[in-house]
Amino acid sequence: MMRTRPLKVALLGCGVVGSEVVRIMSTHADDLAARIGAPLELAGVAVRRPGRVREGIDPALVTTDAVGLVQRDDIDVVVEVIGGIEPARTLITTAFEHGASVVTANKALLAEDGSTLHETAEKHGADLYFEAAVAAAIPLVRPLRESLAGDKVNRVLGIVNGTTNFILDRMTTSGAGYNEALEEATALGYAEADPTADVEGFDAAAKAAILAGIAFHTRVRLDDVHREGLTDVSAADIASARRMGCTVKLLAICERSADGRSVTARVHPAMIPLSHPLASVHEAYNAVFVEAEAAGQLMFYGPGAGGAPTASAVLGDLVAACRNKVNGARGPGESAYAQLAVSPMGEVVTRYHISLDVADKPGVLAQVATIFAEHGVSIDTVRQQGKDGDAWLVVVTHRAPDAALTATVEALRKLDTVRGVASIMRVEGE
Amino acid sequence: MMRTRPLKVALLGCGVVGSEVVRIMSTHADDLAARIGAPLELAGVAVRRPGRVREGIDPALVTTDAVGLVQRDDIDVVVEVIGGIEPARTLITTAFEHGASVVTANKALLAEDGSTLHETAEKHGADLYFEAAVAAAIPLVRPLRESLAGDKVNRVLGIVNGTTNFILDRMTTSGAGYNEALEEATALGYAEADPTADVEGFDAAAKAAILAGIAFHTRVRLDDVHREGLTDVSAADIASARRMGCTVKLLAICERSADGRSVTARVHPAMIPLSHPLASVHEAYNAVFVEAEAAGQLMFYGPGAGGAPTASAVLGDLVAACRNKVNGARGPGESAYAQLAVSPMGEVVTRYHISLDVADKPGVLAQVATIFAEHGVSIDTVRQQGKDGDAWLVVVTHRAPDAALTATVEALRKLDTVRGVASIMRVEGE
Repeated sequence: MMRTRPLKVALLGCGVVGSEVVRIMSTHADDLAARIGAPLELAGVAVRRPGRVREGIDPALVTTDAVGLVQRDDIDVVVEVIGGIEPARTLITTAFEHGASVVTANKALLAEDGSTLHETAEKHGADLYFEAAVAAAIPLVRPLRESLAGDKVNRVLGIVNGTTNFILDRMTTSGAGYNEALEEATALGYAEADPTADVEGFDAAAKAAILAGIAFHTRVRLDDVHREGLTDVSAADIASARRMGCTVKLLAICERSADGRSVTARVHPAMIPLSHPLASVHEAYNAVFVEAEAAGQLMFYGPGAGGAPTASAVLGDLVAACRNKVNGARGPGESAYAQLAVSPMGEVVTRYHISLDVADKPGVLAQVATIFAEHGVSIDTVRQQGKDGDAWLVVVTHRAPDAALTATVEALRKLDTVRGVASIMRVEGE
Repeated sequence: MMRTRPLKVALLGCGVVGSEVVRIMSTHADDLAARIGAPLELAGVAVRRPGRVREGIDPALVTTDAVGLVQRDDIDVVVEVIGGIEPARTLITTAFEHGASVVTANKALLAEDGSTLHETAEKHGADLYFEAAVAAAIPLVRPLRESLAGDKVNRVLGIVNGTTNFILDRMTTSGAGYNEALEEATALGYAEADPTADVEGFDAAAKAAILAGIAFHTRVRLDDVHREGLTDVSAADIASARRMGCTVKLLAICERSADGRSVTARVHPAMIPLSHPLASVHEAYNAVFVEAEAAGQLMFYGPGAGGAPTASAVLGDLVAACRNKVNGARGPGESAYAQLAVSPMGEVVTRYHISLDVADKPGVLAQVATIFAEHGVSIDTVRQQGKDGDAWLVVVTHRAPDAALTATVEALRKLDTVRGVASIMRVEGE
């Protein structure tokens, strides 16, 4: 069955992931050839800095002319691990135009404009695979696109950013503040020098957009995702969570509305019960729950980042794209037929945990409770703590639309007896 | 893009899973059509007892002539949910011969003779999909066959039988004995009237054979899988495990040997540390760890049985098989190129927890320790407990070949001072 003409692979980017892809392609060449039905040949590697010595790569293959590489008509599959919007978008588009399939780990680009990429792939009869864009080697994209293709997914809820999980885990176990935990994450290589994409939730929001899109067969873009990072999470929030039997996680949540006609996608810190399996996801690990009508609740867990795990996902997709080339077949294209509306955060139904710094005098609780009632928000529990003449009110609500909860908090801020809203955090996973 | 000619589906078997497949095909017809690119049509349902009223199924479609149904040349995909070796094998083979692809949940048949089925499918250019054969809707077959196709899987370890997990979970939480826990499982519908396939480990062993085969690209059959059920697990074993900070689970373990040249597959009860994620898998849930060279350690968790979850897996495969029909493509075939040797249990390297009933006199420990040393088995811990003039020795070994451990136990039984070997259990997951 083995054909002799090798499949030619062009690699765009040769950083941590790219060099690992090259290493595996070389060390496991025989296995990959047997699984594909044809040998793989690394036909070119586009880099920004040509001078560096790259172990295991013939210098003759290295080029700074990425455009020239993807314009070659002999390339079967282009692997894009540069990241970012441009030049990645132009290079992928050019690759499709020249008949190549594309494997990418580019979450930002897919979340920004995945549909256009899918359309271009479709037009040129090429494949677009992107398992590596979400949670590295944890299979999520393929299970959602294929394994659950006969089911109805109602919810995807998970920890999809390792950096922020590491920071929150450290804050929880050591009592450290955010800055201290971030410093540790940076020192250990879990956070980048500029941690914005992780700590402000952009990375997780891009993944949420991708997951929501494939889960709900609807186009969901980064702008559709409500996003809050964890920079405002304080040691006091973590301590509050613990008193409630909860822990704090940065969650990505994609949900179908109760009437089934719209979906929401959001990323924000939330309290979840310690008994929830996501509460046991420590360090930089990722874990995602998928709730489907027939399948029930499935969980996927593993390392969500890193050169080798991301390369594993890239190689799995590379084998799939190459098998298709050998068989003259195509993998699944974009599935966005459902075209459900993406609702704003205000329509999400959730619960709030609110800490208020209040004047310690009679009638305060009544005032506060009235505000909640006026906004149609039902209170689950209230805990009052005295403190040096002041008092703290900790309120946990029942489920209500986020807009009503936000309006409630705004109204509370205006009360004379409320000196400050110390923290607001959603409660999930119950 | 939608073509109008529907894809015709023949269903073999209309029990719990089959009727759920029909229900989903009907209630989600529009979604399935959009995802496939063509509508699905239920073309026939083969049953043993024709008289029963089957909700939502046109009686004209129901037949007892399964052979006639799969011989129809207009059938695109046959869904086999009868189970067992015959007539399932003949029906699937006939379906391939008449050009249909097959989706099956039949673990017994795949473990007995999957290779022949794959060969027949290959010969006739048809697809054979079987996600539902292992752990229902938990995606395992597709991730191993496709997502990890560019990686090297070294180990698969998991709980793949819900009935036995329910029984062991009950024994652990309530202190019940095996028979009492089995009765409860039967009463709640978690165990069948004849529980042999579950409690003797046949069901888990079939799944282990399937998982080992796809993980290691090697043919592994049911006979290759070492199998021990849980009928000998006692309340005392569970209590022993707890004293060690462990719990008892029926595990399926598929491993590549250290030199990479052979594999093993086994099912047996084992102690695992309470800190291991599998220790937290309760009730009838399933969970499987997959360890791969680049991906690291991945875990998949969910309901491993039941009509709806199994139907979800069947429908996912049905969509894949139908998409391939629409696109004139084929899914992945059998991948058994590695042809690694399957080693017997004696070569598995593991640890034993052994409880010995010994005479309470000086020199016993020395005698026992000598036996271990003579067999090259290193002792990790020994705990001695006096009891009414007798004594108990609880020995936990370091890792050693199973054959050496077995020989050690045989020699211990022959010692005059050893009155009995109260329990032997392997220790895994450390």
